[in-house]
Amino acid sequence: MMSGTSLDGIDICLTEFSIDEEGKHLFSIKEQAVYSYTLEEKDFLTRFLQDTISIEDVSHANYEITRLHAEYLQRFLTEKGVDSQECDLLSVHGQTVWHSPPRDGHDIGHTLQLLSIPGLAAMTNLKTIGDFRTADMALGGQGAPLVPIFDSEFLYSQDQDTIAINIGGMANLTFIPRDRNQQIMAFDTGPGNILIDLAMKRFFGKQFDENGVFAQEGIILERLWKNLCELEFITQKPPKSTGREMFNSALLQDILEVSFVNTFPGEDIVRTITDFTAWSIAENIRLFGNPISRILVTGGGANNPTLMARLHKELPKAVFFTSQELGFDADIKEALCFAYLGWRSLGGLSGNIPSVTGAKRAVVLGCVSP
Amino acid sequence: MMSGTSLDGIDICLTEFSIDEEGKHLFSIKEQAVYSYTLEEKDFLTRFLQDTISIEDVSHANYEITRLHAEYLQRFLTEKGVDSQECDLLSVHGQTVWHSPPRDGHDIGHTLQLLSIPGLAAMTNLKTIGDFRTADMALGGQGAPLVPIFDSEFLYSQDQDTIAINIGGMANLTFIPRDRNQQIMAFDTGPGNILIDLAMKRFFGKQFDENGVFAQEGIILERLWKNLCELEFITQKPPKSTGREMFNSALLQDILEVSFVNTFPGEDIVRTITDFTAWSIAENIRLFGNPISRILVTGGGANNPTLMARLHKELPKAVFFTSQELGFDADIKEALCFAYLGWRSLGGLSGNIPSVTGAKRAVVLGCVSP
Repeated sequence: MMSGTSLDGIDICLTEFSIDEEGKHLFSIKEQAVYSYTLEEKDFLTRFLQDTISIEDVSHANYEITRLHAEYLQRFLTEKGVDSQECDLLSVHGQTVWHSPPRDGHDIGHTLQLLSIPGLAAMTNLKTIGDFRTADMALGGQGAPLVPIFDSEFLYSQDQDTIAINIGGMANLTFIPRDRNQQIMAFDTGPGNILIDLAMKRFFGKQFDENGVFAQEGIILERLWKNLCELEFITQKPPKSTGREMFNSALLQDILEVSFVNTFPGEDIVRTITDFTAWSIAENIRLFGNPISRILVTGGGANNPTLMARLHKELPKAVFFTSQELGFDADIKEALCFAYLGWRSLGGLSGNIPSVTGAKRAVVLGCVSP
Repeated sequence: MMSGTSLDGIDICLTEFSIDEEGKHLFSIKEQAVYSYTLEEKDFLTRFLQDTISIEDVSHANYEITRLHAEYLQRFLTEKGVDSQECDLLSVHGQTVWHSPPRDGHDIGHTLQLLSIPGLAAMTNLKTIGDFRTADMALGGQGAPLVPIFDSEFLYSQDQDTIAINIGGMANLTFIPRDRNQQIMAFDTGPGNILIDLAMKRFFGKQFDENGVFAQEGIILERLWKNLCELEFITQKPPKSTGREMFNSALLQDILEVSFVNTFPGEDIVRTITDFTAWSIAENIRLFGNPISRILVTGGGANNPTLMARLHKELPKAVFFTSQELGFDADIKEALCFAYLGWRSLGGLSGNIPSVTGAKRAVVLGCVSP
């Protein structure tokens, strides 16, 4: 069960993992669903991303998020006609409410995913694993990204470099070199859908730009474009990771103000941010990856044709392929990855890649109940 | 590793558990230590018990509490000359920052113990278990007390009813009837050392009343005594549990004000609160237990002769016995209990007693890494 920073809902996939005779890991998705939070649920969760709260609220949220997961899981099992007794393990990401990685090797980094693992196990009667990020951070790592171990196992090609991009609230990529001696790199490139979603909410009262139609009707505003492209994080050298503590409504507000575009048509704002988001991902590939690669795009952003058109235009020599060719829907990739991480941990396999997160060593991630 | 709500430090005991031929559980304490937090550490932790905080602070505290535990564990292992590789499991309570049980079967209850279990496991290289309370609360229980399963296994007598009292920040007791068909009861009786400690800090700038000497020098203030005894929680029917959200400096301030004793000698205030604390425990035994019982007192309060003298006076027909007769020091009981809970969970045994916590069913508690 995956619930991202964008707070749009919970993705669930029921997956069977196995190992073939050569030791290669295999997966087979049995059932999947992408559930959107109701407005009420989303509002409730958004409260906990505000500046100040009470410790009671945090404790309450920890419970409510647990209960919400139990409810959506029950709905999933019922809708798909799955008997929970057929499930060996419930692997759950938890709701990230804070994530600040260590910077320049000085500060400590910390992260907080709310959800009670023993609580969810008790509510669902399933062996449950979660809290995947804190072990890596306890070893000095960024706690993210954790998807690369999945990419490395399942997306690798011996013919060409491969890049897996995920456009969720934030955007991140994994660079999987053809040459197995070269290190796997993975990092956040900057915002994914977050700035688009915030602009949609502000100008149109909508949660997101469905099919990129609002962006499609706008034009690019040069001053806004320039200010967005100058955001330092985009061209900062990896390893790097980010979140809502950097890309949020305060940042959007600041940039709109210094760009003098507050009164411009919302479509133009959304178009500019959409194209900037695509550009920022491509710029990271040009600077730190290889623009002549096999490229897979997943996450909500993959469903935004305006964003994808710009990404294709920015990377004319890349070969784009789809997750369907590998046996899964783009929408479900993160849930699938965290199911894989849970399966690895239960088998005693590490889940972080130190060259990616910066942790001192590889470690078995997460925490299991009961 | 046990860190109580009183924020006085971390208790650690290294214990070997086994099962005899008749299936009875046995324990043997190998090493133990009671560490006090430094003032700096205590101040840091106290910050998180304030009214409003940022989610960043909570995430940061979660990390710092984890790091603090890793440090004290390392100190313990070094001082005792123990090789961590000899340890099978690190069982850790975590720092409670909120605990509100369900009330009257209506509201949901929730609790929050800060500490990253995967983080501590990564820092210590030990299999680690913690987060013992949330599973019980997910099943509608009070999440406390959890010590009764230890009491039931190790303190039972077939000759007489037994009562185990623990006086930590809060005070709680377990009533273990001689008749095994009678249900075990356990509940918080009210404040333990918390109000005494708060008064000591306020009037003398001290952390606690060492050996009860300040109380010994004071006299009982009638108006304050009466107002304390009228606190509803004390005579409320079990099951009941409480914490700093009820017994805190705001409550003390209110009671001192309505009793018009703000300018009275601090010794008198401390004496009155000390005797009240003993009375409140005894009153619970008279109302809901059996004053003619075998009684064991543990926790910091057991080291306060003024408090203990009043408790003996309140219960003249009880037979007080010591934990030393059972093979452990009173100070270390809670740490020992949570070691036992961790051992039970690893063996697939439930840790809560539904008649005590009110949970729908018994459940294997906690969460294990890796």
